Amino acid sequence: MSTSTVNIADVKGYCAKLADAALAASRNLASAGGAQRAAALLAAAESLERHTKAIVDANAKDLKAGQEAGLSAAMLDRLKLDEKRVAAMAESVRQIAGQVDPVGQVIEGQVLGSGVQLSKVRVPIGVVLIIYESRPNVTSDAAALCVKSGNAVILRGGKEALHSNAAIAAAMSEGLSAAGLDAGAVQLVGTTDRAAVSELLKMDGKIDLCIPRGGESLIRAVVEQARIPVIKHYTGNCHVYVDQACDAEMAVKICVNAKTQRPGVCNAAETILFHAEAVKNGLAKRICQALLDKGVEIRGCEKVRALCPAAKAATEEDWGKEYLELIVAAKVVGSLQEAIAHINRYGSRHTDAIVTERVDAAETFIQQVDSANVFVNCSTRLSDGGVYGLGAEIGISTDKLHARGPMGAADLTTYKWVGRGHGQLRS
Amino acid sequence: MSTSTVNIADVKGYCAKLADAALAASRNLASAGGAQRAAALLAAAESLERHTKAIVDANAKDLKAGQEAGLSAAMLDRLKLDEKRVAAMAESVRQIAGQVDPVGQVIEGQVLGSGVQLSKVRVPIGVVLIIYESRPNVTSDAAALCVKSGNAVILRGGKEALHSNAAIAAAMSEGLSAAGLDAGAVQLVGTTDRAAVSELLKMDGKIDLCIPRGGESLIRAVVEQARIPVIKHYTGNCHVYVDQACDAEMAVKICVNAKTQRPGVCNAAETILFHAEAVKNGLAKRICQALLDKGVEIRGCEKVRALCPAAKAATEEDWGKEYLELIVAAKVVGSLQEAIAHINRYGSRHTDAIVTERVDAAETFIQQVDSANVFVNCSTRLSDGGVYGLGAEIGISTDKLHARGPMGAADLTTYKWVGRGHGQLRS
Repeated sequence: MSTSTVNIADVKGYCAKLADAALAASRNLASAGGAQRAAALLAAAESLERHTKAIVDANAKDLKAGQEAGLSAAMLDRLKLDEKRVAAMAESVRQIAGQVDPVGQVIEGQVLGSGVQLSKVRVPIGVVLIIYESRPNVTSDAAALCVKSGNAVILRGGKEALHSNAAIAAAMSEGLSAAGLDAGAVQLVGTTDRAAVSELLKMDGKIDLCIPRGGESLIRAVVEQARIPVIKHYTGNCHVYVDQACDAEMAVKICVNAKTQRPGVCNAAETILFHAEAVKNGLAKRICQALLDKGVEIRGCEKVRALCPAAKAATEEDWGKEYLELIVAAKVVGSLQEAIAHINRYGSRHTDAIVTERVDAAETFIQQVDSANVFVNCSTRLSDGGVYGLGAEIGISTDKLHARGPMGAADLTTYKWVGRGHGQLRS
Repeated sequence: MSTSTVNIADVKGYCAKLADAALAASRNLASAGGAQRAAALLAAAESLERHTKAIVDANAKDLKAGQEAGLSAAMLDRLKLDEKRVAAMAESVRQIAGQVDPVGQVIEGQVLGSGVQLSKVRVPIGVVLIIYESRPNVTSDAAALCVKSGNAVILRGGKEALHSNAAIAAAMSEGLSAAGLDAGAVQLVGTTDRAAVSELLKMDGKIDLCIPRGGESLIRAVVEQARIPVIKHYTGNCHVYVDQACDAEMAVKICVNAKTQRPGVCNAAETILFHAEAVKNGLAKRICQALLDKGVEIRGCEKVRALCPAAKAATEEDWGKEYLELIVAAKVVGSLQEAIAHINRYGSRHTDAIVTERVDAAETFIQQVDSANVFVNCSTRLSDGGVYGLGAEIGISTDKLHARGPMGAADLTTYKWVGRGHGQLRS
């Protein structure tokens, strides 16, 4: 594992070497048993803890460079590692090690009329490229999920975390290698030269999948260049729709929880839609007040501003916005259908909730809202791999192909059709 | 449904109109019940039969143009429609109508600790773009599979079949509309201008998936341009490996069946690998003779040529070739591992078979060959949606993401996570 940046002239060859090593490692990982992969992850967790000082020291370099580069306090906080955070990373790797092993699971199987025993068996995808931004714990989480599911991984973190990521990856590799896994199983791209990303994204014979984690511009740039499949994790523009008939107390609590419990994450609500009836009966006003009390800035349509003078005027742009902070867009709609149309037009297909007492409204909402997670009478914040019982997640896919919503280790697998016969032919 | 070609200046607007109509139709299809979609397909099948004359007449125009353009006899045969072939198309649509409805199936579900009822429910993908070449029956099969699975489809057939495809799509649309489905559910691109394909492949907000069906150059061109997800169906470079210990009679039959039963399709074998033991014991010679007797041209390595003087010399290129005709590459390998390495290097991850009596060889082959379909002691020709009991297939995916191997109607669905609660929040 090299932590030094490489010469630009070598980028193509360097990437080819990374990909070849990953491909070779993926063949070994596919053959390694689940027990060996789990043991290797436990060794990697121990190695992370053993190298805490080296990791924190490497992180200090990144923090210093980040301060000099003028990163915001929030970004520096996301970048920062201390003993406690390294311990949390190791603990997360241990939890992933303990998850159910998806590799080898028989998804379905039958004996065909001819006597061929056919089974559809989960197997690793192969080589996964993860491209991500600041938070260094993605390095250990993503590596652990990939190894758990039998994949080799090439990690390409943000340049602001290069030293931290290199130290984390080196520590994990040490543990994995000690447990007998191929060193190519987890590799970090040792250069922040963007040409390396472009090269890797075109290696469709060697790399099977790219998962970009980060802002929309990063993901768009990846899709633009990629010749390999990409699963996109766009951040969420999530909605809560307060229906004409609903439990007022519940509606207030769900709106406040969805918006304020952790505003900076993708399943936090960004827009609240009120049925006109909720304006008439005073519920919309009550919800707005509860949000204002929590320090939320409201950007409303004219009807919202009429009932909540503290609200600013929402522009067209607000409906499509992912604030990721204590700001919420709010709009009054005339009907359930108008709410659904708004969500399907402006939403990001992530998580959307209705608060209603009407069964038919709930079912219509479930059926017609085209999102990965559709909720009735609960908070958008519940769309999460941990909450769903999937264990740690590699992200929440806003794509429809392959995996949708929270993606766990099993979503990093594909399958093969295995046929066992005794001479069957096609006639 | 317009069958006329449109002005190039309008291509962008024309494609936007197609996509908007498909998106609107997909929302309706997602809400239509399975019974309505099945009934609509039966109506479409009847309409196909009712319009047999119009379809055959339109086909005659394409055949005439094809003859003038000097298409090969094989291509003209694939293009040709007569009463019997139209009846077969209608029958295929009826079979698809009768398949199990994948939409709404609950893939998994549980009550979370908090009391939220969580279920993972199959839903249509949305709008699917199918790009294909000569055979006009793809028009009705692909349209039927998409409607069955609740998707709107945009069909873009080859220019040599434009009139045939337009007549088929118009007949199907008539039946679907009469049964109450939105006219946008099945649309044919009414221009052969390639700019239209380029436009459609970039509409990532409206079109959810592209499936290109055809030669490798078509698929590569699609991948190159696409900003929407693509599931690739590369034709197959399939292998039969004859192990050191195997039932000789079975090995001969499987090699002959895999190569000659229908050489022009993707799951026909293109390379036979012999373990050196099969040379010593005479089995390789016997298999070569059986293939020669069936009129197969053999292109062998030096060892194969030594035992079969009729064989031509294979070049490096032959190992990666999909002949799709009565030609086979043949090579002697020193070990199972060499066979697996050869397949993983030169194969197309489609279908590969081992003939062996050794359990450990069979299991190693299954585990290490990185292909969609891996068979023990049966013919590669068995990798097929019909044989697997999936019903009609949209193709055999050589991708690993989303769907691998034979793709049926269920593979044209995604899922959404539905959460039904009573006020649950995230704490």
